[in-house]
Amino acid sequence: MSQTETLILDGNAVADGIKAQLFARIAGLAEKGITPCLATILVGDDPSSATYVRMKGNACRKLGMTSIRVDLPADTTTEELVAAIRELNADKSVHGILLQHPVPHGIDERAAFEAIAIEKDVDGVTMLGFAQNAFGFADYPSCTPAAVMAILDYYQLPVQGRHAVVIGRSPILGKPVSAMLLNADATVTTCHSRTTDLPAIVKLADIVVAAVGKPNFVQGDWIKPGAVVLDAGYNPGNVGDVDYEACLANAAAITPVPAGVGPVTIATLLKHTVDAAEKFGTYRKE
Amino acid sequence: MSQTETLILDGNAVADGIKAQLFARIAGLAEKGITPCLATILVGDDPSSATYVRMKGNACRKLGMTSIRVDLPADTTTEELVAAIRELNADKSVHGILLQHPVPHGIDERAAFEAIAIEKDVDGVTMLGFAQNAFGFADYPSCTPAAVMAILDYYQLPVQGRHAVVIGRSPILGKPVSAMLLNADATVTTCHSRTTDLPAIVKLADIVVAAVGKPNFVQGDWIKPGAVVLDAGYNPGNVGDVDYEACLANAAAITPVPAGVGPVTIATLLKHTVDAAEKFGTYRKE
Repeated sequence: MSQTETLILDGNAVADGIKAQLFARIAGLAEKGITPCLATILVGDDPSSATYVRMKGNACRKLGMTSIRVDLPADTTTEELVAAIRELNADKSVHGILLQHPVPHGIDERAAFEAIAIEKDVDGVTMLGFAQNAFGFADYPSCTPAAVMAILDYYQLPVQGRHAVVIGRSPILGKPVSAMLLNADATVTTCHSRTTDLPAIVKLADIVVAAVGKPNFVQGDWIKPGAVVLDAGYNPGNVGDVDYEACLANAAAITPVPAGVGPVTIATLLKHTVDAAEKFGTYRKE
Repeated sequence: MSQTETLILDGNAVADGIKAQLFARIAGLAEKGITPCLATILVGDDPSSATYVRMKGNACRKLGMTSIRVDLPADTTTEELVAAIRELNADKSVHGILLQHPVPHGIDERAAFEAIAIEKDVDGVTMLGFAQNAFGFADYPSCTPAAVMAILDYYQLPVQGRHAVVIGRSPILGKPVSAMLLNADATVTTCHSRTTDLPAIVKLADIVVAAVGKPNFVQGDWIKPGAVVLDAGYNPGNVGDVDYEACLANAAAITPVPAGVGPVTIATLLKHTVDAAEKFGTYRKE
């Protein structure tokens, strides 16, 4: 396939497809007096994190969902954050809870994630949510990994038997996306900062997922001709982990940044919140 | 390295090393009136499973630990098995619980595993135990994966930056051993029945872990000269997943079956049970 034929994977189109299926469901919930509600928690004043949280809130409102914002100062303690999360767990009007990552260094992020009730863990950040996802039966797999899978699915790009190389091993991105690709029958290689000869490993891949958090890290000559490249990076200035122009030349298909994985992540978060609201409606009636 | 120099990884030596460190700890517990106790549960009458359970019980007794055996008929329901596990959870004399895998088809094995209290989950089979292990802070990683790591450690075989290929993706073996190798800074590829050209992928490996459950499955010409081969298979007749004689020719180091991973798995199970007994002693005093 020559570079002129490279398929640009349009995250906005995938996100619109997901959102299109939510309108009727949100209307159905409204008839029961339920408005799906996502609570976002932002600790500190990192401008990128503030932007992401604002985008998620706006996306909720556009679909007729509600969004609660909990903003906490940078010097919040782990105990204070856990208490705020427990309050949201107990609030029957809240269906999903998103704690914006990363939190300031003084906070035990794992303890905070674990405080989220599993039925409201719409970003799959708890250990139980992670394990359910790794075993293939999560209600709410982490949104960015799920977005990667949704893009592959939307464009009907084959995964079974393909060699997927994931660059990154974080608990909320590299590890769960590796697990999801494995459960979709890819052969999965997980790489990281200690990987020897990363370019040679990436060159083996039919599917490359960049989840490393370094701007323009993945080079064009690492990409096997015909590979599918998914850029899950989000770096300051809306820059991905992939050197897009250079990788475009070799890839059969590639996500841009912005308008690639990002909007699908947000649409997935909305979908999970609607899922949770529908479950809540079900168990509330009992 | 020529084939005459291939290092045979002696599982009995590694197991003896682990057990040697347990004697003093078991004596220390005895002074406090605590005898570490492992409860094993066998459902049905599979002869191999019965042998493994017997071996585990015998290993306990040899070290001065106790072992409770719960034998249930093949037509046990999930509810009955869960009830038996809950009884062991509540029994203060029991420190570790091992449900012998596999259970008969009529039982929901996942539901049974989840019934095991996390503080007694000495084989790391619960979802919480799995996630703790995947995130690198499990008290009790699954025993066979932990045994693979213990062998690599005992022989000081380098893992960091090496390419490890795991054949198999089961929740109690392939997935957790992939996670442990990743946390030890290997680049990890997980393969399975849908992998395309498995021999070519295995040929990339510096470390091969066979966890597939098919006798003599891994062929000699799949092994890169100088690779380390760990056979975590246990098939009827005490046959591993690796064609040992053929792989011996190419490998730098290899585990035999029997006397490879198996005895280290049992020693790890004993160690975890002693760990649990020590913790129990600690929290009982509070």
